[in-house]
Amino acid sequence: MSEVSADQVESAVFERLRASREAARGLAIANGNLRNAVLESIAAGIEASTERIIAANALDLEAGERANIGAGLLDRLRLDAPRIAALARAVREIAVLPDPLGQTVRGSTLPNGIKLDQVRVPFGVIGAIYEARPNVTIDIAALAIKSGNAIALRGGTAAENSNRVLVQVLRDGVAANGLNPDAIASVDDFGRAGANALMAARGLVDVLIPRGSASLIQAVLNTAKVPVIETGAGVVHIFLDESARLDWAIDIVHNAKVQRPSVCNAVDTVLVHRAAAERVLPGVLDALTRSGVRLLADERTRELYPAAELATEETWGTEHMTLTLGVKIVDDIDEALAHIRAHSTGHTESIITEDVRTSERFLAEVDSAVVMVNASTRFTDGGEFGFGAEVGISTQKLHARGPMGLSELTSTKWIVRGAGQARN
Amino acid sequence: MSEVSADQVESAVFERLRASREAARGLAIANGNLRNAVLESIAAGIEASTERIIAANALDLEAGERANIGAGLLDRLRLDAPRIAALARAVREIAVLPDPLGQTVRGSTLPNGIKLDQVRVPFGVIGAIYEARPNVTIDIAALAIKSGNAIALRGGTAAENSNRVLVQVLRDGVAANGLNPDAIASVDDFGRAGANALMAARGLVDVLIPRGSASLIQAVLNTAKVPVIETGAGVVHIFLDESARLDWAIDIVHNAKVQRPSVCNAVDTVLVHRAAAERVLPGVLDALTRSGVRLLADERTRELYPAAELATEETWGTEHMTLTLGVKIVDDIDEALAHIRAHSTGHTESIITEDVRTSERFLAEVDSAVVMVNASTRFTDGGEFGFGAEVGISTQKLHARGPMGLSELTSTKWIVRGAGQARN
Repeated sequence: MSEVSADQVESAVFERLRASREAARGLAIANGNLRNAVLESIAAGIEASTERIIAANALDLEAGERANIGAGLLDRLRLDAPRIAALARAVREIAVLPDPLGQTVRGSTLPNGIKLDQVRVPFGVIGAIYEARPNVTIDIAALAIKSGNAIALRGGTAAENSNRVLVQVLRDGVAANGLNPDAIASVDDFGRAGANALMAARGLVDVLIPRGSASLIQAVLNTAKVPVIETGAGVVHIFLDESARLDWAIDIVHNAKVQRPSVCNAVDTVLVHRAAAERVLPGVLDALTRSGVRLLADERTRELYPAAELATEETWGTEHMTLTLGVKIVDDIDEALAHIRAHSTGHTESIITEDVRTSERFLAEVDSAVVMVNASTRFTDGGEFGFGAEVGISTQKLHARGPMGLSELTSTKWIVRGAGQARN
Repeated sequence: MSEVSADQVESAVFERLRASREAARGLAIANGNLRNAVLESIAAGIEASTERIIAANALDLEAGERANIGAGLLDRLRLDAPRIAALARAVREIAVLPDPLGQTVRGSTLPNGIKLDQVRVPFGVIGAIYEARPNVTIDIAALAIKSGNAIALRGGTAAENSNRVLVQVLRDGVAANGLNPDAIASVDDFGRAGANALMAARGLVDVLIPRGSASLIQAVLNTAKVPVIETGAGVVHIFLDESARLDWAIDIVHNAKVQRPSVCNAVDTVLVHRAAAERVLPGVLDALTRSGVRLLADERTRELYPAAELATEETWGTEHMTLTLGVKIVDDIDEALAHIRAHSTGHTESIITEDVRTSERFLAEVDSAVVMVNASTRFTDGGEFGFGAEVGISTQKLHARGPMGLSELTSTKWIVRGAGQARN
């Protein structure tokens, strides 16, 4: 691209977004069958474009290798035939979910006979800023289409060749069903300035969803002038209360740490009531150690379990994303709650207890999106919650909190039906 | 106040907000009876402080007169004995409303036996930035307390003496019931820098509500780093369709314009199908003219009704707030919808029609918080909708859209109750 100023990029991006808004109107009034037909066209288009996608992806992989982005990122960037088939399958799975639009959320008839219905409608244009994984392009666009929204995408530079082909497949699928393909927009061709314009597009982007690292999300939150849904980072706690059942403590902590340590609902810190420490900690920590978990513990825990390394203050604020776990003995539930208040990111916390007063207090006082009793934190997940699809896990309090499904990609409007009523 | 830097103000405001967050925990777990007792203490405190409030208000009124702020603003600023009694009454009316907290929004039992409940919880700390009218101080604080939230207030400089006394009454009412008075914070003593700090307090303010002029709201939207709920401005339309009943058209347009022209749900522009113009316009416009409405009309309307003045392009984008109305003849519903798309602020639009296909199309395609058929736009109101109290009317799509009641001052959290379940 030749040199252009940020202002020129902004004008060009805004123009593209205005076209998306125009296209969004068609999608918003399209019935569920038509939106599902678009998704089927996209799924078929992905399958038919397998070779083209692999060829474009190869360019991204080569660039990534040249730039030494590392094996992990290269793996996340890679699209091979089985992954492309899985992408098409995922689109079809979204198509068969119940339609989130048109549901009546609340309704009533006023004393004067006026009928009120609050119904689910699309936002209009959803923005998405994300990194590396090109599958997010398909995933978020399919969720947007299912919920009647247009989408404006800004994927990572690392995946730009892959994303260019995927965006074309998406637009073709929309156009194949008689809808305006501008419902799918990408601002990748404008680089970082395009992302900035997307974040500044008040009135053109109804909601912006950042997906990726904590630093990406923070950067979007700091910059955006459009409404943002914060998804993300979880410093997740499990508190083993005085009355914790040993077998539940062992099973749940092990599951929460070991089953999939790289995701946001994996546990990061286990807090143990000092009156339970001797009884439950050895069993819990032995099971973890056998699965290769590295333990970072406070002094009191190390007296009981010397194999653990010494934690630092940093341990308690860290989302580990690996087989590493902080462990700390606390005097009572007050200290546990205070620790959680100080270090939780408001994602998920769980208590293992047999005492109903303690569990109720934990549920009432822990201010997180999901608060659990006697269950693994790994259950914080749209799929597990029965939503069918997951847009992300919101750690903010406005609009959506916790796992977000299709209905969290909708707004509402009030439909008022009268027969000539005027107000007194 | 002596000279301090913006950084120093920010530190001081953030410290105050941290104290409010701490106090918010007590309010969040207080049951409904205790929160209602706080409101009763505040109502009684307002009554007992009538003289003190009037004395403080006199200082603000004197300053306002010296500064020539005008009769309208002076009237909005004035607190006399009847208005103070009305303030106390309003607090008691909020106390008797149903408790918005603890309601289960959704619930289910998963196949593995885990029980899920999504329940309403307070946000935590609500920020409010508003102008002139000191009654907003009591109003928004009472709504916050009822919904279990702490509040951080920034009122206008014009009302600072009045607000100082009112904030003290609020804090005393909280403290009188054994709760931490820091649940009520004001940053008025820091002036404009205090407002800026409030808008920057990410993680300390959960949601910020600006109340006042369109320019205040825009300034907050442009500056805030915390989530904002946009309330406000309404450029409101009524479309008289080809089949509009004449009596309904006359009644509804007259009610929507004349009953209370200074509010956001008053109509600003009437669009008329050209096939109905000759039949309905004279009656509609005569009724308006008799009530002193100034008409700004397009050329085609003026051919039919020469008493109307000529509108300018500016007419169509103006929220009049006075007895002024734009009037325009359109060729068909497509032109009406296009005009609304171009000029509506997404607040309220209504169609007067006998044709069900036209009404359904209008309801589906108009993208506003409230869309009506055969009813006055004046019904867009929390009180009319049966909410008991109104926080404002949201014209955004995130979190709340249309009239906001107490439940719009809440977030939710997921309560998960298991019996040892781990994820497969």
